[in-house]
Amino acid sequence: MSHADILSAAMLDAADLTGGSLKVHSPVDGALIGEVATHSRADVEKMIGTAKSAFADWKLVPAPRRGELIRLFGEELRNAKDALGRLVSLEAGKIFQEGLGEVQEMIDICDLAVGQSRQLFGLTIASERPGHSMRETWHPLGVVGVISAFNFPVAVFAWNFALATVCGNTTIWKPSEKTPLTALAVKKIFERAAARFGDAPEGLLQVAIGGADVGEALTASKDVPLISATGSTRMGRIVGPRVAERFGKTILELGGNNAMIVAPSADLDNAVRAIVFSAVGTCGQRCTSLRRLIVHEDIRDQLVEKLKGVYGKLPIGNPLEPGVLVGPMIDKAAFDGMQHALEKAKAEGGRVTGGERVDAVEGGHYVRPAIVEMVEQTAIVKHETFAPILYVLTYRTLDEAIALQNDVPQGLSSCIFSTDVRETETFLSAAGSDCGIANVNIGPSGAEIGGAFGGEKETGGGRESGSDAWKAYMRRQTNTVNYSRELPLAQGIKFDI
Amino acid sequence: MSHADILSAAMLDAADLTGGSLKVHSPVDGALIGEVATHSRADVEKMIGTAKSAFADWKLVPAPRRGELIRLFGEELRNAKDALGRLVSLEAGKIFQEGLGEVQEMIDICDLAVGQSRQLFGLTIASERPGHSMRETWHPLGVVGVISAFNFPVAVFAWNFALATVCGNTTIWKPSEKTPLTALAVKKIFERAAARFGDAPEGLLQVAIGGADVGEALTASKDVPLISATGSTRMGRIVGPRVAERFGKTILELGGNNAMIVAPSADLDNAVRAIVFSAVGTCGQRCTSLRRLIVHEDIRDQLVEKLKGVYGKLPIGNPLEPGVLVGPMIDKAAFDGMQHALEKAKAEGGRVTGGERVDAVEGGHYVRPAIVEMVEQTAIVKHETFAPILYVLTYRTLDEAIALQNDVPQGLSSCIFSTDVRETETFLSAAGSDCGIANVNIGPSGAEIGGAFGGEKETGGGRESGSDAWKAYMRRQTNTVNYSRELPLAQGIKFDI
Amino acid sequence: MSHADILSAAMLDAADLTGGSLKVHSPVDGALIGEVATHSRADVEKMIGTAKSAFADWKLVPAPRRGELIRLFGEELRNAKDALGRLVSLEAGKIFQEGLGEVQEMIDICDLAVGQSRQLFGLTIASERPGHSMRETWHPLGVVGVISAFNFPVAVFAWNFALATVCGNTTIWKPSEKTPLTALAVKKIFERAAARFGDAPEGLLQVAIGGADVGEALTASKDVPLISATGSTRMGRIVGPRVAERFGKTILELGGNNAMIVAPSADLDNAVRAIVFSAVGTCGQRCTSLRRLIVHEDIRDQLVEKLKGVYGKLPIGNPLEPGVLVGPMIDKAAFDGMQHALEKAKAEGGRVTGGERVDAVEGGHYVRPAIVEMVEQTAIVKHETFAPILYVLTYRTLDEAIALQNDVPQGLSSCIFSTDVRETETFLSAAGSDCGIANVNIGPSGAEIGGAFGGEKETGGGRESGSDAWKAYMRRQTNTVNYSRELPLAQGIKFDI
Amino acid sequence: MSHADILSAAMLDAADLTGGSLKVHSPVDGALIGEVATHSRADVEKMIGTAKSAFADWKLVPAPRRGELIRLFGEELRNAKDALGRLVSLEAGKIFQEGLGEVQEMIDICDLAVGQSRQLFGLTIASERPGHSMRETWHPLGVVGVISAFNFPVAVFAWNFALATVCGNTTIWKPSEKTPLTALAVKKIFERAAARFGDAPEGLLQVAIGGADVGEALTASKDVPLISATGSTRMGRIVGPRVAERFGKTILELGGNNAMIVAPSADLDNAVRAIVFSAVGTCGQRCTSLRRLIVHEDIRDQLVEKLKGVYGKLPIGNPLEPGVLVGPMIDKAAFDGMQHALEKAKAEGGRVTGGERVDAVEGGHYVRPAIVEMVEQTAIVKHETFAPILYVLTYRTLDEAIALQNDVPQGLSSCIFSTDVRETETFLSAAGSDCGIANVNIGPSGAEIGGAFGGEKETGGGRESGSDAWKAYMRRQTNTVNYSRELPLAQGIKFDI
Repeated sequence: MSHADILSAAMLDAADLTGGSLKVHSPVDGALIGEVATHSRADVEKMIGTAKSAFADWKLVPAPRRGELIRLFGEELRNAKDALGRLVSLEAGKIFQEGLGEVQEMIDICDLAVGQSRQLFGLTIASERPGHSMRETWHPLGVVGVISAFNFPVAVFAWNFALATVCGNTTIWKPSEKTPLTALAVKKIFERAAARFGDAPEGLLQVAIGGADVGEALTASKDVPLISATGSTRMGRIVGPRVAERFGKTILELGGNNAMIVAPSADLDNAVRAIVFSAVGTCGQRCTSLRRLIVHEDIRDQLVEKLKGVYGKLPIGNPLEPGVLVGPMIDKAAFDGMQHALEKAKAEGGRVTGGERVDAVEGGHYVRPAIVEMVEQTAIVKHETFAPILYVLTYRTLDEAIALQNDVPQGLSSCIFSTDVRETETFLSAAGSDCGIANVNIGPSGAEIGGAFGGEKETGGGRESGSDAWKAYMRRQTNTVNYSRELPLAQGIKFDI
Repeated sequence: MSHADILSAAMLDAADLTGGSLKVHSPVDGALIGEVATHSRADVEKMIGTAKSAFADWKLVPAPRRGELIRLFGEELRNAKDALGRLVSLEAGKIFQEGLGEVQEMIDICDLAVGQSRQLFGLTIASERPGHSMRETWHPLGVVGVISAFNFPVAVFAWNFALATVCGNTTIWKPSEKTPLTALAVKKIFERAAARFGDAPEGLLQVAIGGADVGEALTASKDVPLISATGSTRMGRIVGPRVAERFGKTILELGGNNAMIVAPSADLDNAVRAIVFSAVGTCGQRCTSLRRLIVHEDIRDQLVEKLKGVYGKLPIGNPLEPGVLVGPMIDKAAFDGMQHALEKAKAEGGRVTGGERVDAVEGGHYVRPAIVEMVEQTAIVKHETFAPILYVLTYRTLDEAIALQNDVPQGLSSCIFSTDVRETETFLSAAGSDCGIANVNIGPSGAEIGGAFGGEKETGGGRESGSDAWKAYMRRQTNTVNYSRELPLAQGIKFDI
Repeated sequence: MSHADILSAAMLDAADLTGGSLKVHSPVDGALIGEVATHSRADVEKMIGTAKSAFADWKLVPAPRRGELIRLFGEELRNAKDALGRLVSLEAGKIFQEGLGEVQEMIDICDLAVGQSRQLFGLTIASERPGHSMRETWHPLGVVGVISAFNFPVAVFAWNFALATVCGNTTIWKPSEKTPLTALAVKKIFERAAARFGDAPEGLLQVAIGGADVGEALTASKDVPLISATGSTRMGRIVGPRVAERFGKTILELGGNNAMIVAPSADLDNAVRAIVFSAVGTCGQRCTSLRRLIVHEDIRDQLVEKLKGVYGKLPIGNPLEPGVLVGPMIDKAAFDGMQHALEKAKAEGGRVTGGERVDAVEGGHYVRPAIVEMVEQTAIVKHETFAPILYVLTYRTLDEAIALQNDVPQGLSSCIFSTDVRETETFLSAAGSDCGIANVNIGPSGAEIGGAFGGEKETGGGRESGSDAWKAYMRRQTNTVNYSRELPLAQGIKFDI
Repeated sequence: MSHADILSAAMLDAADLTGGSLKVHSPVDGALIGEVATHSRADVEKMIGTAKSAFADWKLVPAPRRGELIRLFGEELRNAKDALGRLVSLEAGKIFQEGLGEVQEMIDICDLAVGQSRQLFGLTIASERPGHSMRETWHPLGVVGVISAFNFPVAVFAWNFALATVCGNTTIWKPSEKTPLTALAVKKIFERAAARFGDAPEGLLQVAIGGADVGEALTASKDVPLISATGSTRMGRIVGPRVAERFGKTILELGGNNAMIVAPSADLDNAVRAIVFSAVGTCGQRCTSLRRLIVHEDIRDQLVEKLKGVYGKLPIGNPLEPGVLVGPMIDKAAFDGMQHALEKAKAEGGRVTGGERVDAVEGGHYVRPAIVEMVEQTAIVKHETFAPILYVLTYRTLDEAIALQNDVPQGLSSCIFSTDVRETETFLSAAGSDCGIANVNIGPSGAEIGGAFGGEKETGGGRESGSDAWKAYMRRQTNTVNYSRELPLAQGIKFDI
């Protein structure tokens, strides 16, 4: 399919694609695929006003009814899966299979959110006072600002939006400047659902296109009680305090520096598959990409050799073409950043295999993913470079391996390949990984939506998706009701006037 | 009992009370009751080091065993209840009954935490992949910094410490500069428990005495992953961003501006009792003190008259003496702040009854609690003045009353007196109070420890005590274990190397 | 629409409707609408074998994938809503609106079950032993036998089937002998979903048509670990012990004798609407039908008069026709039972209004719903008569009213109409209703699927639908994993060999 | 200590020990240690009346206050630990260490129940109707009958009593006829706690001594809504249907036939320790005793040899003496049963080592625990013989091993020793053990109280102790409150009168 066909299959038309000041280039071949209108700070403030009005109505709509809207959204996503998956591939550069996977995640979270809409469970609690009942209920927050990143241009938005909406909130979405088109397409898909739904208020979902000033308008506003932001640690270090000083809430999903420990007992064939998928998938530009391989010394050579074999033959090229496993990097800056990191790694003692430019499609920045064998966990290894670089480290004891794994500022995802339950459970225990995600015998990326997604330390501490992550989109209220005709005090205090 | 007897009954001796640079005066009579040694920034850093070491051991101690330590702490608190309650009264100025109530809260939270130590429930979760199991576990965080305020000098600490400790953390406690003695006494009580326990590591609990620099040393440290801070909104506005920029977590319990709506159907006798207890208790210096009374116009005159009657006869005086209901304000600054607020209120159209100095005990700052009848909810009403001032507002419809209740920057506690279930449930619904606590037919203060305590907006969003508030002291980890011999990907992605 | 058109719209064809020994008559007009083949005991045993085989596969299918099948079932139900709702009306005699409501409940439970399929939450639990982890997981049970009643011919089945299926079980459904056609139609709808799903094993759902011997074959079989049975207390008294003696599990949903307390403060207009809907809906043949009205003496006359006014004008007739609110009784036996009860009530002092036959449609048994004013709660009042009879009792104090409400052998549903929160919360407290369902200001029938449905005492104790009712379809397993190299014993026991 | 000293240390006096018709012999030496008065059916009925009265008060006492009573009970148990542990050893014959462990379990469950008393969490639930709120609360049941067995004469009672009491119920305890003295001692310990508590109603705990007629009086009574019975499958087959026919609830803890799978990768030293503790502890008379060893063929000989080595040197004798690991069987019938089983096993192809009488203490029935190597899992292996017999079976593949493990009628406890996480997680999955308890690298006995205890199939399905087992002692109530001024129906039904 031509670029134009992909855009049009995703319902984008001239009004979306022309006349705006934001030029969107496909990483596949550098082609200009849209000139998108951007929003000013004043536009955003107007959006916030609209979202507040919508909230005043939406919060009173019963949650199961709100769930029905998200059910319809899921249906529309099912209908549009192919078209949207292809657009993701075109705009973000990930291979089509991964584009489809992303849309599937959107669908999955809708399904989960629909069920959730009849739950939103608070607690009833035993009171210490006779004739009193206690309970805890969860109420909607208000306007939610979602700031998303280019590498998961639609799925992470959907994690937030599906839950935020059934919880009774209204959403303003600021997509990455690099991927506004997928956002516009998703908004259209949602509007189809809203039209079928019937009486959804205007302003349940608004898309704010632009750069830092748009983000700043959202994060600074007292009228946006929750900011859910995915991106770099640098961004999080600005957003977090900005929202904190106005007593807002945040869900931060920032950098990862994800490792895999490979123990001598590991199934090496599975390990290799997991390593390659998580290290080169999305061309190493996932927050959960595998960046560090911590291998037991006894199997290190064997494993690295196998990996080099696979890396040497990886099909690199146009991500829309079947069979390709490695697409382009998002842009030249990303490519340069990778080269820079490889230089630093060499300077710090690393031996680099791969990493060179590949002339796959003209106009795109294609590279061969790199394996970098390190002697120590140096500064560059502790730094998250958003590129397909896999640092290899060696360990002797499990304690050593865990210490290496934990000795980075980030805390998103981690995993161990081992068949020894004593090792695997240690890795999952308080003595093990310090990450928000810790897996056994699967890679660090590719989480299911049933669990809570997010990480610790510089990853920012936010949680999205499953488990009780929905609570982040609500406020908790503790209620005590005195239904007696007396007025006893808690803690048995006497106070007789 | 003499001051000296109270101090000695609470196990404080010359080493605690003399030679230090922090002079502690009892608000009861202004007497100097201690010269307490303070800590430098370097001291605090050393404490953090000790606490980190202790954490390395403590996190591996099974949680039910950690619970046993807190059970013993609860026993020692039971033994020391009278002595500690009296010390609270002496140092913080609240009446002895309330001092006892505070210790009872400490005991209650210990009991709850002991049970909790066998729970700390995470989830097992259905996985979408064959041969995979998912679960979520909660692990300890590390060093917890607890910053507490003078008005609840020991209970709020205990809420944090009991849970933090069973969760596997170690604690550094910075009490208010105004109430270091109760902190030192509590530390001694804890040490008795630790001695009985046997093998608790050194440094489970350390007390850091001092001012803003001690607080800053805690909030700035990357090695203190959680700061739980109770105090003013002003303080929270500094602490929140400071911790956020280093990706720490916070539990903020800041200002409240708590209201009661009194509907025509209310049981007025109970309402009066609840109003007086929550407006004048602790001399209006609770975070949950009742500050705003929103009365239906039909019963306003009747209610205000009753209140004036009670206020006129309130027993004001030495809080250690039986029968007294209103003790002193904490210090001259507090007294001045109250007078200043009353002046402003007058200027904004308020009619003030009471509020004048009462010569109860020489050296103390005693006042008659004030009732201020307002025409509108002006600036001073929206501001939290930490003093026994009760603003009275009038309403006509419940919607109006709720709008008044919500139209302040703070969001801690709130309540309605009404016997009409349509009103009371509306007040508890998404259309009702925007506070963290919303009660029916009881006042805004005096929460039970079984529910989560805390509030929204400028109150800071933290939750302590019951429900699942323990989660704030732990980090969540999502685990997926592949126990099959295959390696399927989530979302059905195909990626064959 | 003609009967034939209704049958054919519901996908029933000659193969379903002819040649069998079970003659199905529509209660609407007594017309023969089907001659359905029945199953022998041997047939049922064969079905159990098939279901066991299917279970061996299905239990290994990941729960979210099982959820996808139920999602498709929900979609097919949406498509067939009108046709199935009309068939329910034709075969069970309830008005079309209620038929639609029943299908909507099926759809709702499917939506809930889909979300549930990614949850099925067990717990991770703090272990008292170092190097040990504890958790609790839920596993499927096996073959589930669902025995349903004529009055909710499809919804109650769906409550069970949707949850049982996502939980990993396979189902054999024995519908009422009076309503086999709706069961056959539902099975066809499910088969459409299964076909779209692709690889569902044969035997996920089988329908066993027949009488007591079919039920007995299910209840007696060791290979059916769970029997979920809806019906009379008499039936439950047989099924319960039968399953217990082979250590099976049961979900029993038996008789109700549901009451409403109407307090002086009640909104009488709403009360009247609620009373009429719950007392005459489904012609008084719901398990949650309102059977007893306990009215405060001060408003009794006023309320009864209003009710008599409405009862006198109720549109009684063909339930398929718009505007009709009261359809036929299910059969002559039901009609006779009602007349018999009215006779007894008279003999016990009751004053009867209504209750007489109405010649609405020839061949059907139509009656005017009856109001029976009683002096006392006599034997006939304590007995559940499955007919539109509303007994009216009077009370003076709330305690009296609650005592009357509780003084029957059944414990399904109950409600209070009162605007006084002290009364309503008392009714919901341990001092209040002893039923599984207790409502405020709504009638006893018409539960939402988000809560658990079921009752106490002779109602049988089962729970279906929302909350954690899904656990009844699974077995709980407690796991302790020792991942250390030591072997400590629980409770600190020493045992050194 | 002499028998008399042990009895007196446990507060038993002449009034308890003389004049009654139930003769209690110590299994240690056959000595008559008590002649205990028994209760008639009429006595039990009177007790039920008392318990009902107590319930009417106790159910209204706030749960945290009820928890305080159990906290005091825990304190008194701590004080009496040694004395009660020794009495357990004397009366039940288990070694003193295990007697202490049992009391520790009582203490542990008290601690857990105290925390639980502030939880008893129900849910608040999202309603589909505007102006409606839903919640679920848990209320006390009434009188609970606890029937306990000789082998855990006090701990299992405490599991039930501690939770039942904080849940608001009152208890009648029927101990085993073989162990009434420990029950009387526990009652006295509880009475100390009740005296300290102050205002506990009479009849919170009553002990009914006697045989089957006492049990029958409890199980038959409509006024005992819950029977928690521990004992044989034979007993359960009577109790279950008896209670079911009157619509009571049961918690059944019946027979186990617990297995351990030992895989080639297992740590054999730990396996041997776990096997011996769980197979010979309490002389093989625990419900969780290890009865079947399913060993991989490659390590079978090695393991069996090791076991025979340990078995040959087991210190068998007076359980009150330090160092002894194997005490007496409970009585001659148990001894005969064991011999009978060994005969049958031989006849079915088994090779028996050990099993012979040991002349340890005159008057007691002491045996050497037996190892029986089987070729197949024959009838006697599938039967639970309450004696220290360990059947050894061999397997080749894990599937085979799991099939052997599951192919018995009982479903209590199970475990695997393996270090391969693929094996251990398979064992814990839906494809693995069918038991209520499944452990990894620990034996089948010695559960912690934090998890739910109980089993499937002929084990009866009950759960006690931790997790949400407390729910079995309460009734669930689903509440919907309409606080609007409208009356919408669920499922969108239209019904306009």
